[in-house]
Amino acid sequence: MKQQLLQTIDEFQTVDELPVRDDTIVSYSGVPGAFAEQAAITFFGEQAHTLPVANFREVMEALAKGNADYGVLPIENSSAGNVETNYDLLSEYDMTIVGEQVIEVNQAVMVLPDASLSDIRKVYSHPQALMQCSRYLEQMGWEQINMVNTALSAMKVRDDKDKTQAAIASQRAANLFGLKIVNPIGNNNSNNATRFIILHKNRITAMGANKIGITLGLPHESGSLYEILGSFNRHELNMTMIASRPIPGRQWEYYFYMEFIGSLESEEVKQALLEIEESSINLRILGNYRTLL
Amino acid sequence: MKQQLLQTIDEFQTVDELPVRDDTIVSYSGVPGAFAEQAAITFFGEQAHTLPVANFREVMEALAKGNADYGVLPIENSSAGNVETNYDLLSEYDMTIVGEQVIEVNQAVMVLPDASLSDIRKVYSHPQALMQCSRYLEQMGWEQINMVNTALSAMKVRDDKDKTQAAIASQRAANLFGLKIVNPIGNNNSNNATRFIILHKNRITAMGANKIGITLGLPHESGSLYEILGSFNRHELNMTMIASRPIPGRQWEYYFYMEFIGSLESEEVKQALLEIEESSINLRILGNYRTLL
Repeated sequence: MKQQLLQTIDEFQTVDELPVRDDTIVSYSGVPGAFAEQAAITFFGEQAHTLPVANFREVMEALAKGNADYGVLPIENSSAGNVETNYDLLSEYDMTIVGEQVIEVNQAVMVLPDASLSDIRKVYSHPQALMQCSRYLEQMGWEQINMVNTALSAMKVRDDKDKTQAAIASQRAANLFGLKIVNPIGNNNSNNATRFIILHKNRITAMGANKIGITLGLPHESGSLYEILGSFNRHELNMTMIASRPIPGRQWEYYFYMEFIGSLESEEVKQALLEIEESSINLRILGNYRTLL
Repeated sequence: MKQQLLQTIDEFQTVDELPVRDDTIVSYSGVPGAFAEQAAITFFGEQAHTLPVANFREVMEALAKGNADYGVLPIENSSAGNVETNYDLLSEYDMTIVGEQVIEVNQAVMVLPDASLSDIRKVYSHPQALMQCSRYLEQMGWEQINMVNTALSAMKVRDDKDKTQAAIASQRAANLFGLKIVNPIGNNNSNNATRFIILHKNRITAMGANKIGITLGLPHESGSLYEILGSFNRHELNMTMIASRPIPGRQWEYYFYMEFIGSLESEEVKQALLEIEESSINLRILGNYRTLL
């Protein structure tokens, strides 16, 4: 086990910068105007070729099949919390986190150019966006319809030409699809941001990477989480995030997603991970990438 | 601070059994046939008067206004994870957790008696239930419409008399609203259960209570969570659950919801809570109640 973990760590290949060529393809869930597309462009620059796919799972599939070089997935929103299903996808697919990108997210409420607020009966958006706007939507009492993506909702409102429909999406989506914004910030908190992770098929890590993501299961024993955090503490590693998810098909058993500051090249990190592997189940190193400290 | 915490603990009044009279009213979100109603009846017995309200917030409001003696809220599902918005309601309202009830949840897919699977174009349900059935729904590709409650979705399908509509709700809801089940278990995992908490306005705790729920914020310091878990460990208290939620209006700051085994009357628990208060922000004791160990 010890040998295997060290071997996995050795497999991570350090590169000066993440490889981006003229034909690099970055996959995201949605259509142009999606916040994820914005994250892709902010991270890779305008020269990146973006590949919109139907849903989060398809982002993973595009990577697995070699249809895309990178994938972009939302992992956490500052007001609605974790994008929980994506933790499950991280467990299911063997992809590497190679970067992160935070995007300020203002969820605008938009309608057809000749419609107004009082016409609205139905609102279309992604469940996360609906959750981020829960207080506003509670007051309005409109029918809420789940879409796989916010920008797709804006496209639907444009195409259906129905004045009773509204979409919750980005300002950019409103511009792209020629919709009128009736409320520029529908989200519960004006201070709303989403953190996206950048995924790659191979185990690479950019020079200067300072954050590590892992997942692990914990045995049903008193103090098992305390023991894990003790390893971080002994090696003076700062855990920046912890989230728990139920293990599929098992009642009240959880796996944990954790992030901490460090480099896989550091001896302290290696020692901590060896200790953590001893006291956890199925430890997986998801990646080592750069974050702004 | 120390004095205040001990005073709060003293305010909890131990009762032999939770007071239930002939006119006791238990509020839940939904309509008859909801899993929450099932939880209320299982916990309080058939003599309980149940009061259905429009959404989770209204359960809290019914307690606050004295329209109900008890409230029932889902807090955790074994496959979809935490019912996150209810943690926020626990922070917002000063209610006490006085009990818990686990209900096996099989999400059935149901249509009008003369409709069949191939007629379905739209599916109505609560976002949590849609999430629990995500894999099945991904395959079917139906439009997904959020309702405040699963049973309400079944009622809608009955009332709209539209063969293209399906609801995801309980077997009981199908019986109540005369619908035909086309798939008895739509949930991703057959082993699907929801844990409900029972709330009361006053700080009471039933004799033999063995689980404590708390919420707390953590300072942005390395090792702050480790310190909290250290208090549990030193006093040999077993933490059974931990969940984190973003603090409204603050970016990437979290509060934690934790449960551990113990009684507020125990000296070890009091000492641990005094220590935890020192190293956390806004510690709140949500309740002390019975669980099956």
